[in-house]
Amino acid sequence: MNRLNLPLGFRYASTYAGIRKQRRDDVALIVADSPASAAAMFTTNRVKAAPVTVSMANLKASRGKVRAIVVNAGNANCATRTGKSVATATCRAAGEALGCPAIQVLGASTGVIGVELDGALLVKAMPKLVKGLSADRFDDAAQAIMTTDLAKKVAFAEARLKGGRVRIAGMTKGSGMIQPRMATTLGFVMTDAAAVPAVLQPLLREAVEQSYNRLSVDGDTSTNDTVALLASGASGVKVTPADRADFLAALERVLISLAEQIARDGEGASKFITIEVTGAANDVDATQIARSIANSPLVKTAIAGSDPNWGRILSAAGNAGVKLDPALCDVKLQGVTVCRRGLAADFDEPALTRKLDEKECSIRFCIRGKGRGKARFWTCDFTEGYIKINASYRT
Amino acid sequence: MNRLNLPLGFRYASTYAGIRKQRRDDVALIVADSPASAAAMFTTNRVKAAPVTVSMANLKASRGKVRAIVVNAGNANCATRTGKSVATATCRAAGEALGCPAIQVLGASTGVIGVELDGALLVKAMPKLVKGLSADRFDDAAQAIMTTDLAKKVAFAEARLKGGRVRIAGMTKGSGMIQPRMATTLGFVMTDAAAVPAVLQPLLREAVEQSYNRLSVDGDTSTNDTVALLASGASGVKVTPADRADFLAALERVLISLAEQIARDGEGASKFITIEVTGAANDVDATQIARSIANSPLVKTAIAGSDPNWGRILSAAGNAGVKLDPALCDVKLQGVTVCRRGLAADFDEPALTRKLDEKECSIRFCIRGKGRGKARFWTCDFTEGYIKINASYRT
Repeated sequence: MNRLNLPLGFRYASTYAGIRKQRRDDVALIVADSPASAAAMFTTNRVKAAPVTVSMANLKASRGKVRAIVVNAGNANCATRTGKSVATATCRAAGEALGCPAIQVLGASTGVIGVELDGALLVKAMPKLVKGLSADRFDDAAQAIMTTDLAKKVAFAEARLKGGRVRIAGMTKGSGMIQPRMATTLGFVMTDAAAVPAVLQPLLREAVEQSYNRLSVDGDTSTNDTVALLASGASGVKVTPADRADFLAALERVLISLAEQIARDGEGASKFITIEVTGAANDVDATQIARSIANSPLVKTAIAGSDPNWGRILSAAGNAGVKLDPALCDVKLQGVTVCRRGLAADFDEPALTRKLDEKECSIRFCIRGKGRGKARFWTCDFTEGYIKINASYRT
Repeated sequence: MNRLNLPLGFRYASTYAGIRKQRRDDVALIVADSPASAAAMFTTNRVKAAPVTVSMANLKASRGKVRAIVVNAGNANCATRTGKSVATATCRAAGEALGCPAIQVLGASTGVIGVELDGALLVKAMPKLVKGLSADRFDDAAQAIMTTDLAKKVAFAEARLKGGRVRIAGMTKGSGMIQPRMATTLGFVMTDAAAVPAVLQPLLREAVEQSYNRLSVDGDTSTNDTVALLASGASGVKVTPADRADFLAALERVLISLAEQIARDGEGASKFITIEVTGAANDVDATQIARSIANSPLVKTAIAGSDPNWGRILSAAGNAGVKLDPALCDVKLQGVTVCRRGLAADFDEPALTRKLDEKECSIRFCIRGKGRGKARFWTCDFTEGYIKINASYRT
């Protein structure tokens, strides 16, 4: 990995604390050398895991100053008797080990719901984690937060601001309970740009809207979703109002890459699907149509079977809860027009079936209207592998 | 089948018209001896199949008088160039063969979307269908409307009204593109009670709300959904305001049975799942929570794997868009409390896993609140079979 891409002012560590059964690192620690400005978005699920509520409270109490994030995989610490005390003790232990108030620590967990998380495992791991901290262990941390992921998910970008270059690095995890409408899954983004929390929060919200909120694997929304952005300021370069758009563009590149990687590695997925909708009345309508296509099991199984069954795409669009005249709708699969003005187009089906065997699938839904609303959305196909993974995830 | 259960005044027929590849009856004809009072509910999908728009228009033009319903399987006649003319020609052919105006005929189609339906096949089949009409061919008609269904779906009830007994008989089909919020799939219900269309329509709407609208297989809403209720009046017994509740109860029994049969025979389903929610603020909230649980692929795959993973149920409830305090929530699986006040309950997991191997699964979600809102909902588990069927349905 290109060390040059890593933002200044952060160190990372990971270890095996004994939370998951397989002997594979299951805790990651992300530390800012001095309190970083922070922004975060959390799950909209009414059932929130303990680390989510504790992190929300800490972020408020610290007025958006964060020294560290402790993340564990293998247990969601959700719907647990001791959840809050475990999450609080973890933050406290990290704070003591790092010499900062506990409220400057965020916690995040991912894994099974409803099983007590042994907090002692996390507390005991803390000295080793802190000792192992290093500026170049970013990838190790990204590896440790994986659950059913097949590959670690990281992304990097630089932005040239007036005051100089700043770096952004993000890590995230997949790959089930993934549904848009919120900051989905766990994502941690570090930058060495300087910005106060009040500047960061809207930047994060806008970037999440263009990335994590345009992503669906299975339509389920996790109880633990957290995306946090930490700005160390270590570059000495401030995000000024004049620079805002440039910084946002770089931030979006990182978040979009992470979201794409989640879809690519969706549970059981054999294909990555990009959905583009154009010509809707507005972007909100376009996103609704794209989401409805992305969430249709019938569309996702057809793609799995390389079946150019565009009728299911049209039907899913018709279910989006948005006004739609099928006579104005074209559908393209892999660039081939399969439906024109709501009717079957002439196309070479065997050739298109072969094209649909590729790992990357493109669905374009074009409305021949006056609207300029458009949206991009990412998902994956739905295979027997998804069922296999989820019928036996816990046992 | 018990002939006594069949409502008076109807005849049925089916034949193979050559629409589907397998040589299996693919057209059904339902005929009322004289114009019946009719009510119907149609898909809310913005993309409506031609037979839906033609039937809506006919029902309006005839002021709710219907002599016949022509149903074909194997082709949805949706997103087709000739769709409207084919649907119109079919109604006209049936009208000519039966000696009634074409507007007294409803059409319905089910099958693949976007492939032209050869109307000549239907027109040509009409004389044979009419010739084959018989009061006891109800089951044949029910068989002919099946697509991926493994079993035909019929239900019967009697209601004792002031004027005497009336009979209700219904047939329906599954088993993909099934999602509530509407009159889902195709369903045809006949009664020999006497009632004007204005009385029938609200009865049908109420019964559908308690049955088809509490059903989900895959969360997709078909372009062709139609549920029609025909009242021949041949019993000579009128549904009076004093009888309304009794008639509604019998109608609901038929429709609930049909909805249950659809869930039982969901594509690839190995288990039938009943979800009951109690203690919600109101019935609407309870239904939303039940629907969210029923539509969660993670819940449905866990049930497929006999995994008492109640965390997914709690999480799905938290996603219903309804206010929910997890600390007030209990979850029972097969009658066993697995979650009490949002936390893991003590239960014998191996014993429950064995219970979950049964073909019938019960999920009870109880909110310990002051609310009296409750809902029942039906769905099925999500297996590799669903993927297999839908990755290769068209080819």
